[in-house]
Amino acid sequence: MAELPPVPLTLEGSSLLHQMFRFRWREWRGLPQSRREGILSEAVSWLQGLENGKTEGHPNQSAAYAQLGHKGDLMLIHFRDSFEELSEVELALAQTEISDFLEPTHSYVSVVELGLYESSVKTYAALAEKGIEPHSPEWNAGLKDVMDRSAAAMAPRLFPRIPSSKYLCFYPMDKKRGEQINWYTAPISERQRMMQEHGAIGRRYAEDVRQIISGSIGFDDWEWGVDLFADDPLVFKKLIYEMRFDEASAVYAAFGAFYIGVRLPPEKLSRWLSGGSTT
Amino acid sequence: MAELPPVPLTLEGSSLLHQMFRFRWREWRGLPQSRREGILSEAVSWLQGLENGKTEGHPNQSAAYAQLGHKGDLMLIHFRDSFEELSEVELALAQTEISDFLEPTHSYVSVVELGLYESSVKTYAALAEKGIEPHSPEWNAGLKDVMDRSAAAMAPRLFPRIPSSKYLCFYPMDKKRGEQINWYTAPISERQRMMQEHGAIGRRYAEDVRQIISGSIGFDDWEWGVDLFADDPLVFKKLIYEMRFDEASAVYAAFGAFYIGVRLPPEKLSRWLSGGSTT
Amino acid sequence: MAELPPVPLTLEGSSLLHQMFRFRWREWRGLPQSRREGILSEAVSWLQGLENGKTEGHPNQSAAYAQLGHKGDLMLIHFRDSFEELSEVELALAQTEISDFLEPTHSYVSVVELGLYESSVKTYAALAEKGIEPHSPEWNAGLKDVMDRSAAAMAPRLFPRIPSSKYLCFYPMDKKRGEQINWYTAPISERQRMMQEHGAIGRRYAEDVRQIISGSIGFDDWEWGVDLFADDPLVFKKLIYEMRFDEASAVYAAFGAFYIGVRLPPEKLSRWLSGGSTT
Amino acid sequence: MAELPPVPLTLEGSSLLHQMFRFRWREWRGLPQSRREGILSEAVSWLQGLENGKTEGHPNQSAAYAQLGHKGDLMLIHFRDSFEELSEVELALAQTEISDFLEPTHSYVSVVELGLYESSVKTYAALAEKGIEPHSPEWNAGLKDVMDRSAAAMAPRLFPRIPSSKYLCFYPMDKKRGEQINWYTAPISERQRMMQEHGAIGRRYAEDVRQIISGSIGFDDWEWGVDLFADDPLVFKKLIYEMRFDEASAVYAAFGAFYIGVRLPPEKLSRWLSGGSTT
Amino acid sequence: MAELPPVPLTLEGSSLLHQMFRFRWREWRGLPQSRREGILSEAVSWLQGLENGKTEGHPNQSAAYAQLGHKGDLMLIHFRDSFEELSEVELALAQTEISDFLEPTHSYVSVVELGLYESSVKTYAALAEKGIEPHSPEWNAGLKDVMDRSAAAMAPRLFPRIPSSKYLCFYPMDKKRGEQINWYTAPISERQRMMQEHGAIGRRYAEDVRQIISGSIGFDDWEWGVDLFADDPLVFKKLIYEMRFDEASAVYAAFGAFYIGVRLPPEKLSRWLSGGSTT
Repeated sequence: MAELPPVPLTLEGSSLLHQMFRFRWREWRGLPQSRREGILSEAVSWLQGLENGKTEGHPNQSAAYAQLGHKGDLMLIHFRDSFEELSEVELALAQTEISDFLEPTHSYVSVVELGLYESSVKTYAALAEKGIEPHSPEWNAGLKDVMDRSAAAMAPRLFPRIPSSKYLCFYPMDKKRGEQINWYTAPISERQRMMQEHGAIGRRYAEDVRQIISGSIGFDDWEWGVDLFADDPLVFKKLIYEMRFDEASAVYAAFGAFYIGVRLPPEKLSRWLSGGSTT
Repeated sequence: MAELPPVPLTLEGSSLLHQMFRFRWREWRGLPQSRREGILSEAVSWLQGLENGKTEGHPNQSAAYAQLGHKGDLMLIHFRDSFEELSEVELALAQTEISDFLEPTHSYVSVVELGLYESSVKTYAALAEKGIEPHSPEWNAGLKDVMDRSAAAMAPRLFPRIPSSKYLCFYPMDKKRGEQINWYTAPISERQRMMQEHGAIGRRYAEDVRQIISGSIGFDDWEWGVDLFADDPLVFKKLIYEMRFDEASAVYAAFGAFYIGVRLPPEKLSRWLSGGSTT
Repeated sequence: MAELPPVPLTLEGSSLLHQMFRFRWREWRGLPQSRREGILSEAVSWLQGLENGKTEGHPNQSAAYAQLGHKGDLMLIHFRDSFEELSEVELALAQTEISDFLEPTHSYVSVVELGLYESSVKTYAALAEKGIEPHSPEWNAGLKDVMDRSAAAMAPRLFPRIPSSKYLCFYPMDKKRGEQINWYTAPISERQRMMQEHGAIGRRYAEDVRQIISGSIGFDDWEWGVDLFADDPLVFKKLIYEMRFDEASAVYAAFGAFYIGVRLPPEKLSRWLSGGSTT
Repeated sequence: MAELPPVPLTLEGSSLLHQMFRFRWREWRGLPQSRREGILSEAVSWLQGLENGKTEGHPNQSAAYAQLGHKGDLMLIHFRDSFEELSEVELALAQTEISDFLEPTHSYVSVVELGLYESSVKTYAALAEKGIEPHSPEWNAGLKDVMDRSAAAMAPRLFPRIPSSKYLCFYPMDKKRGEQINWYTAPISERQRMMQEHGAIGRRYAEDVRQIISGSIGFDDWEWGVDLFADDPLVFKKLIYEMRFDEASAVYAAFGAFYIGVRLPPEKLSRWLSGGSTT
Repeated sequence: MAELPPVPLTLEGSSLLHQMFRFRWREWRGLPQSRREGILSEAVSWLQGLENGKTEGHPNQSAAYAQLGHKGDLMLIHFRDSFEELSEVELALAQTEISDFLEPTHSYVSVVELGLYESSVKTYAALAEKGIEPHSPEWNAGLKDVMDRSAAAMAPRLFPRIPSSKYLCFYPMDKKRGEQINWYTAPISERQRMMQEHGAIGRRYAEDVRQIISGSIGFDDWEWGVDLFADDPLVFKKLIYEMRFDEASAVYAAFGAFYIGVRLPPEKLSRWLSGGSTT
């Protein structure tokens, strides 16, 4: 059989911005109580508005997480309909009073992505059987048809609500292009098989962990971002450890830094800022 | 056939400087309104002058982009006729009042470059057939002739106007010189074939994305810089992802950090500075 | 014999946070004596409470170490029952007055882990012999049974008290996933053999050094953290050097930065802060 | 023929320090005009003295360059007779008033070096033919003789004046010691051949670019520093690009960061500090 | 012959701390003269005490070096009997007034080490010939005997005085554990041969350069630190360059950053602080 085109079809949804901040505790505690209350009150209501998102169209929510360790104190994640809207929320935050106490330490820009490896292989093979030339108008139309139908079926996963889980784990990743190990030169049928095995592990954890994959080629320094949401952070470890032994990860994956956060609903911001338990 | 010389001919055009800045929002918001207005007014008129560029000779424009995430808030790109003129615009910016609020986070120095792989191989082969010795005066003259004619034909691409597209994607890249994978030891005919396939992908996206390649060997830390301009940022992802599977990229390319920006025309600077939508 | 499942069973215990800080000596010395005494007094009693930990349930202690060199002046380690409790101790510290003088330089988030390579291989083989399908309910129940019994037997190692040793050595590590050397594609029986040899070295040092391994896949940037506790720091060097020649380390281990500290009991904090000997 | 000793003879000349600084523009512009004039006047006369160098003995000059981009605003290069004299000029600068506005971002310490690959191979072979044992007194004397004669002949290149060219390109480099590609295990005759081919390219550019190689093994983080001086910066790109295809560079070279500067004669310092053109 | 145990015997001596600082020149020069004199006077007498070290027991000295370039202005090295004493000198420095002007940029923690490759191979072979089992009490006793005798003979090298040489070169290094090149899996007899060849080069430089090797496995980020002391810094370059061609370095060594310093005796601290020559 002739070689199929190598590029898998993908669907894109919400634009996604992660922001990590260190909080300037010393300056915060140096403020008079009344000033802190004013700032807090503005921050809570701003964050509440973002967390609720929109009632029409895509949810387009934001959420806050208390981070562990020196990588940052506070992580915000924003789902929006465009990069321009992400820019707007970033600028709006820069106008809040609490932003005086937020020192950016990291960020990540991506777009929610669903990879259609299985459909790609099927569709490419079907079009090839019909003798349709890749990149011909007919071929393009055939792909568009598949993608449109998939996008409609998967809309809630493309423009997701933010899971209410207590813990978030975020990390970026690449597929390796090494001297001998190169994901991008492996045949698409091989990659499809590996992604299927990879996905099978994820499905065994589906009850305990919700996963949102976003693509960042052209947007940020890694190829994908992964957000995992769970009520028990141990499942992050168990899931990722188990996956590390599957071929797609063991052989081909490169991982960036890992960020872990505890969900910080707006109504707990006050306790967080005064060092009280957020439980 | 004897081995052809390995170095492809290139044409060089505008000198190009990218500047990335973090904006000191806290200090900015701490200023009295009237002071902010004065600074803004100077900045807008300075930027407007740069964006208009020159009416004679090369366009030599500058443009501003709002960045996403912690890598910076504001990106400026400057096209000029020389590095000295780039130095001048950098020094002029350092004299504006708004520069007090701009903290440099990154930059990139390069020169617009057109690689003439196809002409190189043809010309080298033709000169070799005539028995002309590489680096002889006659050989040099033969090359100069080809380059002069190409430069005249391609002048608008060598000294380009800045596309008015809404989004910019910038990243630097290298060709690998690994232990087994080495672009620089591959025969020029092989490299020419790979660059042609690479270019074919780009041409399929030509309607949606405008690309400016600049060379930075000897000027900055990577070998090339790539600027992509588009009204829909998803095409950045789709184009670069598709290219990642072609041989020139999959096997030989190494990529640096990616910078994404939303065009910020001078007249929207005021809204940007006050957190309003720039749409 | 059929290939056994590749993922070893692990047990998880205390959530563990390392915090490294540089101390702002200049600002500290700039304070009037009485102010320093007040801050110190709060810090000592806060730290004393944490060091004592809990009298019921798991010990959940914290401890302080004076660091050597520029990586930090003070290291705190916290064992707790959850990430949320780690977040709370971090936030509580941020409310103490002494935290004004603590500049975070590094941190590490992990969970105490016991790897059950030997049990895993035995159990997987036994279940396979009985014809029980991996990931079937019966298989899962078989594993759960082994893990529950192990967890009960090993509870004191899963939720450990902090050894009172004078010196601490902390470092993170990975198992390599290189082009030819890949821990994650080695058969579990091979890995079990290597871990056994690795463990045999550790046992020869058991009298002089206490080791706590924590897993950080999904939590921080390396796969494991290692804490070694000893009264003579030379044993750190001798143990790690000897291990560097065993196959599991020589061939498969990648190491991060090393952090060394001298135990700083709360009652010596005063001398530490005034530059006196803590002996 | 027996293997020749692997270490090529080298001649060493001036001690060389590169200093890169970011200029604190905001603080500078915040000064009253008269204060700026006083500081400038001291700086100009200090720099003039250094630029003139010495009238007896080696030139021992310094020169300033305006940098492009965020890596720094101002680069100083100092040629001296010893590291101690380099330390002195560094300390003297730290006593000038303008140093209050100079924030060090980078530096490089090296010694002007001429590699005598051709003489080495010839001399080693001649001594071997005479049956003289390597490292014997007679052998050492034979080498000393060659080196003394070469040093006398090449004195102006060992203790060079700083070319007055408009542009400077500086970068550090290593020869690779990889798993299969290892410069240091290649026979000296092979290395000599490669260096000769490498040098042949340089000679074709000799009219347009002046090159000073300095060795930094034992002094700084790379093995060599390269300074290129030219009136047209495009020749930096063309020369380095062409060299990248020769075997010594394509296969064996690793490059650090690149620094580009526009010569800033003391008399233009005033215009530079006020943002005017330095042309 | 059966394989010998892979771990070479080592002797350990003084605990060693390197501290690198940038000096806050601007703030220093901003002080009134009388204040500077007071601070200087305290610093000189503090440093003099440390430089003299102890008259009984080990020398336990400290010394200061003026650094070149941006990596730091001042380097302190401290030899002590334990890490706790290193911690004490670090804390004592933090209490001096001059420490207000010292910004830590780097440091290194290690222990003076003598590797006994030759004795190890001989002793392992002798014990093996006698049929003594590795790690048996008898075997341990045999090794202890060798080490005790060596330690007594080499005491002055284990607890050295600081050479009074004018220049210091410090760098950390590792032995590689690559995919094919792995020091830690090479037989000890091979490593012994390579170390012997390596040592032979050093001995040819013994008159001009004094070398102190310290081990840092478990203490800092590299496996060893190397301090070279010489009156002519060119011998650093010549020695290290020559060694780079021997097998132990060419194939197996990885090097960290290099730090170069000019000895700064306490009595010259005043001139250093006022920018005068320290010659």
